[in-house]
Amino acid sequence: MGSGFAFECLARDDAARTGRIDTPHGSIETPTFMPVATRGAVRGLDVRDLEGIGSQILLANAYHLHERPGEAVIQNLGGLHGFTGWRGPWLTDSGGYQVTSLADRAVVDEQGVTFRSPLDGMARNLTPEKCIAVQEALGSDIAMVLDECRPLSDDLAAPRANMERTLRWAERCAKARQRSEQALFGIVQGGVSPELRRESARETADIGFDGYAHGGLGLGESREVRAALLTETHSALPEARPRYLMGIGRPQDLLDAVARGVDLFDCVVPTRNGRHGIVFTSRGVLNLRNAKFREDSAPIEADCDCPVCPRTSRAYLRHLFHAGESLGGRLASLHNLRFYLRLLERSREAIREQRFAQLVAEWEGNVRESESP
Amino acid sequence: MGSGFAFECLARDDAARTGRIDTPHGSIETPTFMPVATRGAVRGLDVRDLEGIGSQILLANAYHLHERPGEAVIQNLGGLHGFTGWRGPWLTDSGGYQVTSLADRAVVDEQGVTFRSPLDGMARNLTPEKCIAVQEALGSDIAMVLDECRPLSDDLAAPRANMERTLRWAERCAKARQRSEQALFGIVQGGVSPELRRESARETADIGFDGYAHGGLGLGESREVRAALLTETHSALPEARPRYLMGIGRPQDLLDAVARGVDLFDCVVPTRNGRHGIVFTSRGVLNLRNAKFREDSAPIEADCDCPVCPRTSRAYLRHLFHAGESLGGRLASLHNLRFYLRLLERSREAIREQRFAQLVAEWEGNVRESESP
Repeated sequence: MGSGFAFECLARDDAARTGRIDTPHGSIETPTFMPVATRGAVRGLDVRDLEGIGSQILLANAYHLHERPGEAVIQNLGGLHGFTGWRGPWLTDSGGYQVTSLADRAVVDEQGVTFRSPLDGMARNLTPEKCIAVQEALGSDIAMVLDECRPLSDDLAAPRANMERTLRWAERCAKARQRSEQALFGIVQGGVSPELRRESARETADIGFDGYAHGGLGLGESREVRAALLTETHSALPEARPRYLMGIGRPQDLLDAVARGVDLFDCVVPTRNGRHGIVFTSRGVLNLRNAKFREDSAPIEADCDCPVCPRTSRAYLRHLFHAGESLGGRLASLHNLRFYLRLLERSREAIREQRFAQLVAEWEGNVRESESP
Repeated sequence: MGSGFAFECLARDDAARTGRIDTPHGSIETPTFMPVATRGAVRGLDVRDLEGIGSQILLANAYHLHERPGEAVIQNLGGLHGFTGWRGPWLTDSGGYQVTSLADRAVVDEQGVTFRSPLDGMARNLTPEKCIAVQEALGSDIAMVLDECRPLSDDLAAPRANMERTLRWAERCAKARQRSEQALFGIVQGGVSPELRRESARETADIGFDGYAHGGLGLGESREVRAALLTETHSALPEARPRYLMGIGRPQDLLDAVARGVDLFDCVVPTRNGRHGIVFTSRGVLNLRNAKFREDSAPIEADCDCPVCPRTSRAYLRHLFHAGESLGGRLASLHNLRFYLRLLERSREAIREQRFAQLVAEWEGNVRESESP
């Protein structure tokens, strides 16, 4: 177990919960959203920007940082905290998802994954043991096990095989740990089968981790199916450990998952959409490139407390996107990330006050009223 | 004359001078540098960033904004100040330089310039009268006349012809003015001929403008030639008006020109170089992509008061540039702009204290000692 790591649940509202995670680099109020800094930087945003919008913890990708600049460089510069200047908590994803599901000509066998590096075309391999060594060198507060993640397929045996291999890899990851101050989370797999995911959760919990993640979701399943899978999985996980839904999603996906008791989220949606001019409001999304914003002097959203809305009109943002000025993507990303972080701040408050269902109903009412952008 | 516009010289040190320009949107201490916001935005930087590094006045390009989003849109949203959120002074360049020297298949005749828009390929024309109307609609605090600017050529008659046409256009610009609160600056032309530039200055001053700019420099002339041209020109301009050296240059170019009595500067060098990983220090330039910075935990410069240096290592910046993260260019631009603004803050202080020559000597000593990056 990570020696500087603890989780305490502070309030519940039905299955939703709010709590606090302590790490060696500070505490996090949950549920919360982790901005994605794949290569050690959130696209276009610096540490002061991230502090200014209330970020608590960032996520980096161990595989990408292993490729460039290499974990030794980062370790020599004081780990992710010293290297990037973000002194708060860091979570590192193992990169298993990128390598096993996306890499060109990856070969997965029991030992690990062999693939060609997109950087230099040379063969690389990633094993559970190496994945832990890289994350320990990066010095993140929370590391993730290496899991095998495959897209939904017609091969009915695949989800069980992936799930069982992920379990064996999880055991090897747990054995490979050398730094007691770093927490390690296991990952539940099992495709869209409630039985498989419950079995995966139970056996992952038997190995014993500091927290547990839902892997392999967001690959096309419906909201209802995902909600049921979360509930099934949570029934087989220890209440006293944090739960993390990996890589998902839109605001309504976060509310759905908070309602089932998820504590941590990450997703590229707010920053990627922001770079393309898609921004979130409590009444739905807006496409800032739209002609109707040409002379719109209103901010993205009137009562927004992000750094952008008090001083920036939709018309100016539209101009920046049409003129190819990267400032547009930066400002839209800042707004979107603040929107996500604030949604989870409001969720925590609502859970403490036993009115989370009301917050969700208000959210859905607002979005239902919205015009399409 | 611009009714809300005034210039006062507050101290002199040899030919160098420091003073204050009052505009309808606030005062500017001179000499100063104007960050370039061609399309209404400094690349990658927002209004809070620009305030944070001590910017006093921004420069936009009237031609680019006329093309997109159009001056009517900006006027309807409160002019440049309302549209961009930068509430301090704005100077607009006419765009004459872009149109007459760079545009594809531009035809310049006495009436004005006809050219094909790079946006839609359609024919456009720009006349002195239209140039003033556009800038008045944009609502800048300082507008520039339309001038004819041509690259150095073998045609010995060209500098005189350009200079004389610029004078005729300047008269038309002065007559076309309708908004008394906007200042208008004339532009001195005449190539690298001291006689032509002095004649241009004298006749431009006879028309009478709120300030005077050096146009058509930075096109290959030596430091010594440029310094002599500045001195010649200033001898024919009224002392009581501000002087602006357009589009130049490196830090040593600014010091050279301050020494001859220039008050205002703009240049894309700090932001363009920043985007390419070239940063300025008091000991010379660094190329942040260089392998020697791979594990360099030092900031760009140890005693720098920019927002970047206190929290950011050269190693991290190098990583951002190699990983293709736009944050690298943003941070390097912020550092470089602060470096320029600070250099002119120090120049103002040195002029007040009658030690500007000493500042220049220290600068040159430091840079001479520097290792090449």
